[in-house]
Amino acid sequence: MRNSSRGAVDPFIVMDVMEAARAAEASGRHIIHMEVGQPSSPAPAAARQALAEAMERESLGYTVALGLPALRARIARLYADWYGVDLDPARVVVTPGSSGGFILAFSALFDAGQRVALGAPGYPSYRQILKAMDLTPVEIQTTAANRYQLVPEDLAGIDYDGVMVASPANPTGTMLGLPELSALVGAAQGRGAAFLSDEIYHGIDYDHKPVTALQVSDDVCVINSFSKYFSMTGWRVGWLVVPEAQIRQVERLAQNLFICASNASQVAALAALDAPEELNANLAVYARNRALMLERLPQAGFDRIAPPDGAFYIYADVSHLTQDSRAFAAEILEQAGVAVTPGLDFDPVRGAGTLRFSYARGTAEIEEGLDRLRRFMETRG
Amino acid sequence: MRNSSRGAVDPFIVMDVMEAARAAEASGRHIIHMEVGQPSSPAPAAARQALAEAMERESLGYTVALGLPALRARIARLYADWYGVDLDPARVVVTPGSSGGFILAFSALFDAGQRVALGAPGYPSYRQILKAMDLTPVEIQTTAANRYQLVPEDLAGIDYDGVMVASPANPTGTMLGLPELSALVGAAQGRGAAFLSDEIYHGIDYDHKPVTALQVSDDVCVINSFSKYFSMTGWRVGWLVVPEAQIRQVERLAQNLFICASNASQVAALAALDAPEELNANLAVYARNRALMLERLPQAGFDRIAPPDGAFYIYADVSHLTQDSRAFAAEILEQAGVAVTPGLDFDPVRGAGTLRFSYARGTAEIEEGLDRLRRFMETRG
Repeated sequence: MRNSSRGAVDPFIVMDVMEAARAAEASGRHIIHMEVGQPSSPAPAAARQALAEAMERESLGYTVALGLPALRARIARLYADWYGVDLDPARVVVTPGSSGGFILAFSALFDAGQRVALGAPGYPSYRQILKAMDLTPVEIQTTAANRYQLVPEDLAGIDYDGVMVASPANPTGTMLGLPELSALVGAAQGRGAAFLSDEIYHGIDYDHKPVTALQVSDDVCVINSFSKYFSMTGWRVGWLVVPEAQIRQVERLAQNLFICASNASQVAALAALDAPEELNANLAVYARNRALMLERLPQAGFDRIAPPDGAFYIYADVSHLTQDSRAFAAEILEQAGVAVTPGLDFDPVRGAGTLRFSYARGTAEIEEGLDRLRRFMETRG
Repeated sequence: MRNSSRGAVDPFIVMDVMEAARAAEASGRHIIHMEVGQPSSPAPAAARQALAEAMERESLGYTVALGLPALRARIARLYADWYGVDLDPARVVVTPGSSGGFILAFSALFDAGQRVALGAPGYPSYRQILKAMDLTPVEIQTTAANRYQLVPEDLAGIDYDGVMVASPANPTGTMLGLPELSALVGAAQGRGAAFLSDEIYHGIDYDHKPVTALQVSDDVCVINSFSKYFSMTGWRVGWLVVPEAQIRQVERLAQNLFICASNASQVAALAALDAPEELNANLAVYARNRALMLERLPQAGFDRIAPPDGAFYIYADVSHLTQDSRAFAAEILEQAGVAVTPGLDFDPVRGAGTLRFSYARGTAEIEEGLDRLRRFMETRG
């Protein structure tokens, strides 16, 4: 059988790093993991407890396609608690991770060949999912001056049917304020384009709260997940908020494409929403790690960094140190025993001169990693 | 925002039945559920126990995209145990349910506009997923004489890039024997078309064992799941077996489209593979139910049925009783208190004259349902 053209998506370069790190560990080396994009903490204890009880009590068969009603209602309440937004639970769709949310939203909104504008650097799966669905990602190079976020001027003169933003963003951690987000929503709506907002890192913020696109307009799609703040990556449960007019279309697609998100994961997610103490303890670790990173990465020589408003990443311009971030990451792994992500996954154009450092792991590991990076850079000279 | 054209898939008609049944129950009526497509049994106790233990021990973050290596190896061993087939675990891809397997296989194999041949009646999501992915389902009316399965003559003169079969099939329960399956694989391969085999009901069989397409050729895609025999519908974990040449493409697509199947569900699934006693006890219930159905449905007047070799469905031709299976199902629900599925979901052409009866629930419920159906038909005259 032949492979399709649209299925020929790019490999993740970070996978090579992870495989090299695994091989190094298998050979007995100790590796610090600054390449990972997930918390090392498990799902909250309350979530695991709720599932353990449900497994004794319920058969945990299919849920309805849009998700457990109690979970949809509780997610809607999160918008009141976090943003003061009154959200109809009927607009909340529980999805198999944010990945499922992208697939649902893209298939509900766009026909083959349509164009979706994205800022680079950005989460690589955006463009790969679009490509696999026969849509055209229109990647726009953002600037450090604009905190690596799109601005309406970037969209002027560009033909697009939808635009997607992320705030806090991966890999930069930068956020869009209310005026900036409003301007982008206005630009998209002004030409009848769909607006999608990836808010997966909401809750992992430090100096100020992120803004949801639902504060700007009801005519947007918001993608979110239990993976990051709620520390449930492997559970594959997220949610999508859609405009009223999309609900039926998304429901029918969900019935056919997914049937439902894991019932067990939905049960756990519902309980995770009421575990703020444990989640905020995780957040306090990220905050300590971030302070350490912001202090000591520049001391080590990684001083050209985007302002990391949220998430658990630092994106560093290392173009004065290398023109080959892939080789540089391999060198750091080999010499320093620290796994970091070359920027090429996030930005095929400029990523040869950037690295992403994650601080999602424990503080002791981050401190050790920072020591190793400093010594490596001193030795490198 | 506008809805896409490709996202405008058909609604599931069975959902109206389920909603009507729910409303009847809410008003105090007792309803027998012969519309459901899932076991009422939970995941095996060993599966739930394994997950309960893993939740105490592991963080259950992302797995690698192709799935837990131990699970892939154990699934490969199933092919030795069940069919005597030697399968390389590298060809096994763990997916978020069989739904995820379809999405992966279709995107890996087919480009927009390509045509996939299917027999009708069939599982409705086949054509909806194809449509949502900008592929063209080519539905071919099968015949009772061919047990509602495709035969090579059906494919002669038809333009297609892939063909998909299901054995045991939903809604009919009929199976393809080795000669029939070989002939179909040969027809597809003869013109360079991909061959996909949905084997989700394997393990739920009665008089003779089903045949896997892997007994015929390595150059096929096999879709399977833990939902049915392993009694884990709501856990959303299944698998896909792909030819050697597709592994890398499928891996990259899985990384981007899903990241991974639920880690918790994978842990549970691995243990479910070693719980044959509980699973075979479930199977004994289906076997009793099936015997009751085969004896008493004809007595009630539903005597034009496909030979139900496997799965837990009986597909009945009721075209001598009605030309509107949707109204007839509503009447049966209203008058008899039994929820059944009108055939229109499975066959838009002839389904107005067919019903699907599921016998996946407990035997007492099936007996009561059969009593009700007999009385209903007697009264109807």
